[in-house]
Amino acid sequence: MEDKKFVKEIQSKEEDYSRWYLDIVKKADLMDYGPVKGTMVIKPYGYAIWENMQKDLDRRIKETGHENAYFPLLIPESYLKKEMNHVEGFAPEVAWVTQGGNEPLEERLVVRPTSETIICSMMSQWIQSYRDLPMKLNQWANVMRWEKSTKPFLRTSEFLWQEGHTAHATYEEAEEEALQMLEVYRAFVEEVLAMPVIPGKKTENEKFAGAEHTYSIEALMSDGKALQAGTSHHLGQNFSKVFDIQFADQNNQMQYVYQTSWGSSTRMIGGLIMTHSDDRGLALPPKVAPIQVIIIPILRGDKETVRTKAHELATELKQAGVRVKVDDREEMTPGWKFNEYEMRGVPIRIELGPKDLEKEQFVLARRDTGNKEFLPLANFVETIKEKLDQIQKDMFDKAKAFMDSHTFEINSIEEMKEQLLKEKGFMKSWWCGDLKCLDEVKEETGATARNIPFKQREGNGKCVCCGKESTTTVYFARAY
Amino acid sequence: MEDKKFVKEIQSKEEDYSRWYLDIVKKADLMDYGPVKGTMVIKPYGYAIWENMQKDLDRRIKETGHENAYFPLLIPESYLKKEMNHVEGFAPEVAWVTQGGNEPLEERLVVRPTSETIICSMMSQWIQSYRDLPMKLNQWANVMRWEKSTKPFLRTSEFLWQEGHTAHATYEEAEEEALQMLEVYRAFVEEVLAMPVIPGKKTENEKFAGAEHTYSIEALMSDGKALQAGTSHHLGQNFSKVFDIQFADQNNQMQYVYQTSWGSSTRMIGGLIMTHSDDRGLALPPKVAPIQVIIIPILRGDKETVRTKAHELATELKQAGVRVKVDDREEMTPGWKFNEYEMRGVPIRIELGPKDLEKEQFVLARRDTGNKEFLPLANFVETIKEKLDQIQKDMFDKAKAFMDSHTFEINSIEEMKEQLLKEKGFMKSWWCGDLKCLDEVKEETGATARNIPFKQREGNGKCVCCGKESTTTVYFARAY
Repeated sequence: MEDKKFVKEIQSKEEDYSRWYLDIVKKADLMDYGPVKGTMVIKPYGYAIWENMQKDLDRRIKETGHENAYFPLLIPESYLKKEMNHVEGFAPEVAWVTQGGNEPLEERLVVRPTSETIICSMMSQWIQSYRDLPMKLNQWANVMRWEKSTKPFLRTSEFLWQEGHTAHATYEEAEEEALQMLEVYRAFVEEVLAMPVIPGKKTENEKFAGAEHTYSIEALMSDGKALQAGTSHHLGQNFSKVFDIQFADQNNQMQYVYQTSWGSSTRMIGGLIMTHSDDRGLALPPKVAPIQVIIIPILRGDKETVRTKAHELATELKQAGVRVKVDDREEMTPGWKFNEYEMRGVPIRIELGPKDLEKEQFVLARRDTGNKEFLPLANFVETIKEKLDQIQKDMFDKAKAFMDSHTFEINSIEEMKEQLLKEKGFMKSWWCGDLKCLDEVKEETGATARNIPFKQREGNGKCVCCGKESTTTVYFARAY
Repeated sequence: MEDKKFVKEIQSKEEDYSRWYLDIVKKADLMDYGPVKGTMVIKPYGYAIWENMQKDLDRRIKETGHENAYFPLLIPESYLKKEMNHVEGFAPEVAWVTQGGNEPLEERLVVRPTSETIICSMMSQWIQSYRDLPMKLNQWANVMRWEKSTKPFLRTSEFLWQEGHTAHATYEEAEEEALQMLEVYRAFVEEVLAMPVIPGKKTENEKFAGAEHTYSIEALMSDGKALQAGTSHHLGQNFSKVFDIQFADQNNQMQYVYQTSWGSSTRMIGGLIMTHSDDRGLALPPKVAPIQVIIIPILRGDKETVRTKAHELATELKQAGVRVKVDDREEMTPGWKFNEYEMRGVPIRIELGPKDLEKEQFVLARRDTGNKEFLPLANFVETIKEKLDQIQKDMFDKAKAFMDSHTFEINSIEEMKEQLLKEKGFMKSWWCGDLKCLDEVKEETGATARNIPFKQREGNGKCVCCGKESTTTVYFARAY
């Protein structure tokens, strides 16, 4: 019997968070590094998580009236240049195609870093009258940003995402759409990824290149750094004016449309990892886990009876829609398997030996808490389904408690510095509205304004930077 | 009431097949042209067809034991160059990335035209021992081939596809895999797209660049030209030797793996159109139709009763898993709507007026045959589900009858020329095995060897080109 050491060579979280993260993505077999700097391969286990995320989010996007479409990967340079802020934001970090086949191209092409420009150019052909509005599109695609410093899932030169693009007759309708999609993200991330988030509005200096304003949901990783987990932009008429997207309104007057765009990406997988995992490896919420239940028969004595029962139970679970696997390999010890599936973050492990069968019971071990209990085989499927729901809820609650206990009321830059030395988290502060104060906070502490949360405090207080009386609450944090 | 002319400005199929095809893809709202030559936008209605195809094919790929993954878009030039035949086949038609951000790259990167090279480079790291085999991967991705002459769906510089890549311990196992995946394609294309195909082996001159041999399924379009609808390649050890993919076998001897790759793309949408559509527009088999049933209430007399009933029926169908839509807009006439949904290829149209309700009946019109009948509202859902199955079957049978009646036994190049002037189709001929004969047939007639069908004729006959006694049957055709 081949019995590998139980040591999994994961760096501990406490000692080196960054190393711990890199160990997990590799040891849990989520990804590998690609040959071109900054690229990665999403391996089957990581991709299965993405597929589960996609399926759920795609349903929510369609339920809110959007249709999927597909736009070309390559965008002419002249398109990118039309919106000034947009080109300034993206030009330094795009990949350029300059040759097709054996011939140099007349005009350079950009590998899309995002698709506003090409989608706007099409919308200008498709939209003529108010009857064509609203136009609500979404695409699932790969995008590329030539990043200098990269990290698996969190920042890679190529990543997968969905990007929504809509056009509306009025400012109000576009605003409603941008807010609706942020709420779709919030619900998805909290309900499916079990990651609590702060929804709010980005400050001017942090908004999307070309947007009127940007909304975001901000999550807090277990090292106290923030992660932007989804953004929704109200583009106003910034793009419609340069791409000439006009419609005849009900009075036959030509008007420019108001637009939104919103995106969420494979970055969320990085967030998922840093929210829930520990020194034993990955921990996945049941709703996105490729394997929700692993059954490990303890093959002693009457092996075949145990094995058969294990497969029977798996079949029952499968029929009930549970993603389950039996690992009945004999060349690995149960102990090796326990470690392996802990590393991979499988929410429930079931152990089943000959003695358990005699007593009509099984062992259930929870990945999130580490708790182990003996449970009766009667009502097996129901028990498992309840546990999965419970785990999903408990993982969210635990992350929420962490976020709450790592949200600090901070009244000055000095306080913020001290807090950051002690323990990182969200720095809840008053802000006077002056962008210079945000710059100063960033320079002094490394923390940026994550967003202006929708849930504002009553009353007022002193600006964290200049001390002026302020009524706006901002969440600051060091961020990924 | 806005009543547009019923004229749909589709060129008739007889007069100009190519124009007819382009009219359909535009008027049925499947696509639009992108700004870069040879690219296209897949519009929501076209993309919904692709999603239905993907869902079904993805299930089949997973059921045969493959896992999805995602590999980077950009491939270093040096990788492409490793396999000589491969680079010769693809280098003339790739897009080159030469600059990232503001800096020129040290090594040029290829936008993947297919992913053998990058996947092989990863497999060489992942595969160590026989225990790692077989490795069976698939990815859904965009690929790019810098084509000189393009046509929507059939040949575009960027297209969407799935590409499977597997590694095996033995030649036999790889061969079995290549054949199995061709069979998966055959079943999918025939059962879901209702397109009959000829499965067979490609001749040497038509195989994939870098393969030992290639299998294909070949469909026949309604103009008598063939379309390759899926290919499966046995790569032998061609790639494993240059990418050094070795494994320790059970005797601890190092061996090179045997590999396969197989792909199917948005090209199939082009095939779907050319197999089933007519001068009234697109015709879709129920299994891929985004809307399977369109209900058009005839809003006369007691409008609200009719409208309510229409929505009730739609709800019943939805609950039974049927994709249904009610079009109860009053600004369009029923006649306009009839044309619109015929153009879009919706398999079943239901008309429902006040008189129908009195008689407890409805009108069912089939898109494929044009037949219209009155049917009782009793057993509504069951009736519709049976009709959908019947339509799916009838569309296949009709296409099969067309293919059979357009498969001609041809014994000489002269006969082939005559047949091609009369009516195009599959030219079933004997072939001696000499590649020069294939070249000559192509030069003289424009027809290429589509494949050597698995279903061979008994006995022997004279080679269509040189007249030598031959035992191999080949299907020739002009092809897309």
